[in-house]
Amino acid sequence: MSAKKGLLILNGQLNFQQAELKKLIEVEKIRSIIAVDGGSNRLREVGLMPDLIIGDLDSITQENYNFYQSKGVKFNQHPVEKDQTDSELAVDFCLNNNFTELIIIAALGGRIDQQLANLNLLEYISEEGLTAKIMDKNLEIALLTNSKTFSNQVNKRLSLIPQTKVVKGVTILGCKYPLDTVDLLRSKTRGISNLITEQQAVIKLESGLLLYILEEL
Amino acid sequence: MSAKKGLLILNGQLNFQQAELKKLIEVEKIRSIIAVDGGSNRLREVGLMPDLIIGDLDSITQENYNFYQSKGVKFNQHPVEKDQTDSELAVDFCLNNNFTELIIIAALGGRIDQQLANLNLLEYISEEGLTAKIMDKNLEIALLTNSKTFSNQVNKRLSLIPQTKVVKGVTILGCKYPLDTVDLLRSKTRGISNLITEQQAVIKLESGLLLYILEEL
Repeated sequence: MSAKKGLLILNGQLNFQQAELKKLIEVEKIRSIIAVDGGSNRLREVGLMPDLIIGDLDSITQENYNFYQSKGVKFNQHPVEKDQTDSELAVDFCLNNNFTELIIIAALGGRIDQQLANLNLLEYISEEGLTAKIMDKNLEIALLTNSKTFSNQVNKRLSLIPQTKVVKGVTILGCKYPLDTVDLLRSKTRGISNLITEQQAVIKLESGLLLYILEEL
Repeated sequence: MSAKKGLLILNGQLNFQQAELKKLIEVEKIRSIIAVDGGSNRLREVGLMPDLIIGDLDSITQENYNFYQSKGVKFNQHPVEKDQTDSELAVDFCLNNNFTELIIIAALGGRIDQQLANLNLLEYISEEGLTAKIMDKNLEIALLTNSKTFSNQVNKRLSLIPQTKVVKGVTILGCKYPLDTVDLLRSKTRGISNLITEQQAVIKLESGLLLYILEEL
């Protein structure tokens, strides 16, 4: 079965131009573009159409609502008073519709509480068995639960942030600051600002959850 | 013993004007102003002087370095290749110099990895027995380990983000969406976007760590 990939556009900063976003959609083989409430305003600013708009719709402008209605875009509207953020509702939609992979954009640069909730959603998505990453212009964030090889990413900054209190047995290969089976603590900042130096860099861990942030310098 | 309060200026966005910052320093009874590397550039932009500049000094401009040198500001310089961020070094300095409370500003709005590391430092500071909060223009972030009463904060948004996988027995009083002894999960977004409705709002928890984000709307 081929991957069913969804692109979620949230209500943070959208730092992609239309051409960049089109390329991302092509390269990542996106099957469905889902704008999350105010993310639909962002998407219209760059001139792209979503397949679906989801959320409580308290952030989409009336003008954009009318525009998307007139174009026949589907809406999945939820009550304002609910226990989840719109982003979580969008993830649930994808879980219920057999998506296997999510690319999430405009997840950062907005409200700090929303940003943190969006980052924590990576843990929810991972628990549900899907892969996901948050992407920005020169940035990629995802959750590491065992190991990952970074290919052809020389000279990018790689920061590791423990999501659990301890991440046990972290090994870093192919970076400026290698580690050999070292525990990283969430309360300390040891994993910040590493640099990939080899064509193949590898992060491994024995237990725990680690966010990685890969950024082009 | 009276509280020895330090103000740390990090290298994120500094959203305070000089007068606002002076007022913060006065109201919070700050005893020492510590600029963390590039935070010293931010501080000079608003025309205030630090008591100390700390870090590896790879972000302070040469001009600002010379300026602060000429004014006799003390420097505490560390090697670039180290296991901690500059922010963590600044916290360690405060721990070693009998500070009891830290106000941290310009902690947000910069690099996302640094932002997350700065937020996680609240856990480190708390473990070491100090109180600390991250402040921004209309925003306050701190770690909750048992209970906190918010007085006279009606109509501010209060978001709760679990730092541990589970925060057990959370009770919320005096808010639009109250809770009575409910577990919050880090992977879910249930604590986001509450609103304080009473003169006295209370958050209590039985175990775990909870970040609160209080924001003026």
